[in-house]
Amino acid sequence: MYNVAILGASGYTGAELVRLIATHPQITITALSADRKAGQTMASVFPHLRHLDLPVLQKIEELDLSAVDLVFCALPHATSQAVISKLPRSVKVVDLSADFRLRDADEYVKWYGGSHEAPELQREAVYGLTEFYREEIRDARLVAGTGCNAATGQYALRPLIAAGVIDLDQIIIDLKTGVSGAGRSLKENLLHAELSEGSHAYAVGGTHRHLGEFDQEFSAIAGRPVQVQFTPHLLPANRGILATVYVQGDVGEIYDALSDAYEDEPFVHVLPEGEHPSTRHVRGSNFVHIGVVRDRIEGRAIVIAALDNLTKGSSGQALQNANLMLNIEETTGLMLAPVFP
Amino acid sequence: MYNVAILGASGYTGAELVRLIATHPQITITALSADRKAGQTMASVFPHLRHLDLPVLQKIEELDLSAVDLVFCALPHATSQAVISKLPRSVKVVDLSADFRLRDADEYVKWYGGSHEAPELQREAVYGLTEFYREEIRDARLVAGTGCNAATGQYALRPLIAAGVIDLDQIIIDLKTGVSGAGRSLKENLLHAELSEGSHAYAVGGTHRHLGEFDQEFSAIAGRPVQVQFTPHLLPANRGILATVYVQGDVGEIYDALSDAYEDEPFVHVLPEGEHPSTRHVRGSNFVHIGVVRDRIEGRAIVIAALDNLTKGSSGQALQNANLMLNIEETTGLMLAPVFP
Amino acid sequence: MYNVAILGASGYTGAELVRLIATHPQITITALSADRKAGQTMASVFPHLRHLDLPVLQKIEELDLSAVDLVFCALPHATSQAVISKLPRSVKVVDLSADFRLRDADEYVKWYGGSHEAPELQREAVYGLTEFYREEIRDARLVAGTGCNAATGQYALRPLIAAGVIDLDQIIIDLKTGVSGAGRSLKENLLHAELSEGSHAYAVGGTHRHLGEFDQEFSAIAGRPVQVQFTPHLLPANRGILATVYVQGDVGEIYDALSDAYEDEPFVHVLPEGEHPSTRHVRGSNFVHIGVVRDRIEGRAIVIAALDNLTKGSSGQALQNANLMLNIEETTGLMLAPVFP
Amino acid sequence: MYNVAILGASGYTGAELVRLIATHPQITITALSADRKAGQTMASVFPHLRHLDLPVLQKIEELDLSAVDLVFCALPHATSQAVISKLPRSVKVVDLSADFRLRDADEYVKWYGGSHEAPELQREAVYGLTEFYREEIRDARLVAGTGCNAATGQYALRPLIAAGVIDLDQIIIDLKTGVSGAGRSLKENLLHAELSEGSHAYAVGGTHRHLGEFDQEFSAIAGRPVQVQFTPHLLPANRGILATVYVQGDVGEIYDALSDAYEDEPFVHVLPEGEHPSTRHVRGSNFVHIGVVRDRIEGRAIVIAALDNLTKGSSGQALQNANLMLNIEETTGLMLAPVFP
Repeated sequence: MYNVAILGASGYTGAELVRLIATHPQITITALSADRKAGQTMASVFPHLRHLDLPVLQKIEELDLSAVDLVFCALPHATSQAVISKLPRSVKVVDLSADFRLRDADEYVKWYGGSHEAPELQREAVYGLTEFYREEIRDARLVAGTGCNAATGQYALRPLIAAGVIDLDQIIIDLKTGVSGAGRSLKENLLHAELSEGSHAYAVGGTHRHLGEFDQEFSAIAGRPVQVQFTPHLLPANRGILATVYVQGDVGEIYDALSDAYEDEPFVHVLPEGEHPSTRHVRGSNFVHIGVVRDRIEGRAIVIAALDNLTKGSSGQALQNANLMLNIEETTGLMLAPVFP
Repeated sequence: MYNVAILGASGYTGAELVRLIATHPQITITALSADRKAGQTMASVFPHLRHLDLPVLQKIEELDLSAVDLVFCALPHATSQAVISKLPRSVKVVDLSADFRLRDADEYVKWYGGSHEAPELQREAVYGLTEFYREEIRDARLVAGTGCNAATGQYALRPLIAAGVIDLDQIIIDLKTGVSGAGRSLKENLLHAELSEGSHAYAVGGTHRHLGEFDQEFSAIAGRPVQVQFTPHLLPANRGILATVYVQGDVGEIYDALSDAYEDEPFVHVLPEGEHPSTRHVRGSNFVHIGVVRDRIEGRAIVIAALDNLTKGSSGQALQNANLMLNIEETTGLMLAPVFP
Repeated sequence: MYNVAILGASGYTGAELVRLIATHPQITITALSADRKAGQTMASVFPHLRHLDLPVLQKIEELDLSAVDLVFCALPHATSQAVISKLPRSVKVVDLSADFRLRDADEYVKWYGGSHEAPELQREAVYGLTEFYREEIRDARLVAGTGCNAATGQYALRPLIAAGVIDLDQIIIDLKTGVSGAGRSLKENLLHAELSEGSHAYAVGGTHRHLGEFDQEFSAIAGRPVQVQFTPHLLPANRGILATVYVQGDVGEIYDALSDAYEDEPFVHVLPEGEHPSTRHVRGSNFVHIGVVRDRIEGRAIVIAALDNLTKGSSGQALQNANLMLNIEETTGLMLAPVFP
Repeated sequence: MYNVAILGASGYTGAELVRLIATHPQITITALSADRKAGQTMASVFPHLRHLDLPVLQKIEELDLSAVDLVFCALPHATSQAVISKLPRSVKVVDLSADFRLRDADEYVKWYGGSHEAPELQREAVYGLTEFYREEIRDARLVAGTGCNAATGQYALRPLIAAGVIDLDQIIIDLKTGVSGAGRSLKENLLHAELSEGSHAYAVGGTHRHLGEFDQEFSAIAGRPVQVQFTPHLLPANRGILATVYVQGDVGEIYDALSDAYEDEPFVHVLPEGEHPSTRHVRGSNFVHIGVVRDRIEGRAIVIAALDNLTKGSSGQALQNANLMLNIEETTGLMLAPVFP
């Protein structure tokens, strides 16, 4: 049995970690932190977890981490780095923030503003896209969870770039995401009355921070700079990301590159050729569904990937990585079937 | 390991059974039936279940039930009775339809129209509200799953009637239910465009069939005829039932009757006095949350119960009963935390 | 042509007033205020109004009200009273806040906390439920818009209390409301992720402030104290209130009392006996639909009323009252058909 | 005063026509048809229209069209052509089906299957995208309403193709549409439980019939064959289309082409450069909002257009065209502000 702590347990990714670990047979939650809600129970902050016997929320500095094997850090961007740099080196860390996703210090400044407070950890951190960094993650002390949009786009594109089957200068990711990806923050545009019954794009034109991850990862695979177009849209739904990816190349080669890449993966399923996925069929689960469809225009294809932003896009991915780091069978606690309808 | 079959697997309660059994360590699904969709895979009917290795859908008469320990019958009302009466007596049955909920043949005719085709089974069947029929269910061959609305109202009211702490002639159940309770049937009023962004009552004035269950059960507990008022409403949501129950009696006695009744129950939680539940905090789970609030008018209280109609209201209840019938620990496979948000 | 100003135009009721007045042939908006958003255009605060030629938002103290015939005051509760008491007596006022709904100073303190800053105006204000205060409103200088829930319950109950056809001690209003009634305020429980796909009650047990209006109005009609039970619930929808009202009395007398009362009303429609309404069929309109259904228990009936909280429940009502006060035909600008689906 | 008939009044576009005409000062509805629902009132088929005094639904062959000036034909695709070819030549017709959108008989067969029953009318019909066919529509006897998706994409692209400012071989339309565009038909995938809380693409790869319109119109403007990529997605919302259009060209020229084209248009608004629209800000209205954003990749831009599929995308467009054909001021009855929230 391993002991874990969750820092920032009053947000949605923290709650999702608790939900998943609730039925995990080898992991126990022994400490939970929440800054403004310190002193409260999880049942009062998240009544859906009231059946669980959980530690009371505490401030980070009050936590006893002496018997903790691994810390999940679900703190806001930019606060993670300071907290993690103060943790004892003996504890493993899975960070769900953006703080350690970019390996290059300049890129971090470019996308996130201020300079990084823990550049040495930035270099040490392993990028947490499990299927592509599995061995490094197994040996890592610090794993950086990916952006949820960044994960979805990469599941569709990494094998295609690696196999050299698409035009690297004509890639468009048109992405639709549920609202829980924006967290539990009080913003006018996240109110039900503002958001339901409609849709709009945001961060249009190449300004979304997850582009930093696309640039870093796709360029590394290709061995040359790759820039994609990326337009996220907000859906009137809580969970789910659908990435519609437009690529140019031979559709047969594209399909084969994807099926080969994910053939033995427990969580990533390539649908039969011509079929394509729906976010509602992965809801609440750690699965990714990917479809490939031939366009009527010769030499063009549409690749569509769907996952649940809170599960495979963040907390499920984090638990999958923690399993590897703790030498637990990778799928443990993560085979929950999607919840439909 | 026990083998089960699911009849009527192409509906929502069938799919929910598969979802729950997917991570159940002691039950295997060895046969699935669906009439019009016979020959198809579950993955094509319910793509969210594509990661599972499941038998192909067959017509009931084609199923091999020889090695099956228990059959879940998720067929439409009125078709269940004929099918179940033909099953070998050696196989245990959990029926999710309305066919065996009412013990009295005349009551069945009154609420469901035609006469019953298997009246002897009707008498044999045990009413499946686990917490109140646990011992009978353990020994039963045939268990009749309750109506989902009927279950919700009973969780709020049975302990109060049993304890004699409320006025039996002044009970009102104002209930709100998500749309999945109506099943996957093609009806104009279940279309998204008809149903989203609004609410309305249905079966107003005491015509909803679940009243047959309320009448039967409440009268039996009270030892005299009890009739409640019951108005269901449709919510623009997929899962969840909220029953707002108006009762007259001493609020302290009411609260005590409920907390005493559910003190040791793993799935039924009575909230601290004055708190009340939300459907979203039980979504996708087998839990029931119950709250009691004192009204400003002396001698009146509001009891509110919430559960997920597809889980605790039908398929979760069915699995809980199957566990008992198969001598498996009752909570096995059912401790999944609710999915929020 | 009449000139009007709207104070507090950056909230939902302010925007709804602009929407309705946009096609009103005899009213022009000549001034708009918003405190924190002063200096912005309405198009930036409410992009759906960008086709209109509207004054820029200003602070109240900067407005030129000299040529204004009537002011709509859509400010938050408790701030309205100070602002209105400083307006010149020559300008007519329709207040959409709660500040002038209760005529009794003690009742105001009981339901709203602090003491009232303009008690003389409190006495002067006419209660804005148009169908029942039409003549007083015509001559009023200050009209107090009703609570949206309070309006819905009163449409169902006032004629029944006035006709003496129901038991005054057994009235229950179980109400479901869309989320826009809570306004555009930043509260965690109003986020899409918290609110969609579920339902819960709030202000349970007789604590909702609109009970002050029910008490005042129902007691005045009955000529003796009347207290109702009232439980509001939040729907995952933006607009619409459905009040399910449980009464005891003869259903024929109840139906007649309602049809007689509303026979000549342009906006209040009593459905054929046995039918009942849906919020989606009044969405975006100034109409009220009322249905009466006989319960299976002798001597009991269910009366269900539906309206749009932002239209008939507040801004539509306000414009209807303004029409009367400005001697414009009452229905002008308000005959827009509901928007369905 | 002009008299109109609506054929196929029991569908959503029929109901939307009634909603809009309800407050139109110069048009009266004198006949309504519905096949299966003949004999019923509109109030029973669409309770939101119960306040209107409307003719009873009849079968088409029973209608008296002698005094009718114009017929709106909202019948299903393929049934329109037979009906319209039998109407007297003296009556003007606005058809909302797909039957007369394609001028070329072979293209019709390619996209819609069977051969056309009224090829001579096909040649006569004027394509109903008002802003681009205004003069022809004014003089037309038969106007073919456009596809709702086809309209949205054309608003974004026509001026760019006409101005020659984009690469004609690199155009992608990623479109998101609300569910009412699919009509009131009983299909499993349109059920609330199937559709809410998620999103998926459909007709992927260039198979959607509205591509026939894109091909016809864009090729005609360009004077050479133009093929675009087009992927529609279903949103869990009732109304609204958002077309995210990826183009290659100079963003300044693109912006200028759009603002010039729509400068004097009453319903089409080009937002300030860098801003982009939301479907919820045009809901229930006849307005189109268009935004242009520069991509981080030099020489690429994203053009986003939003409209309400039932209003500007079909019934509002139809009324706008009818106004022109009847020599009524074009915007009459269509200046209703969008309904938000």
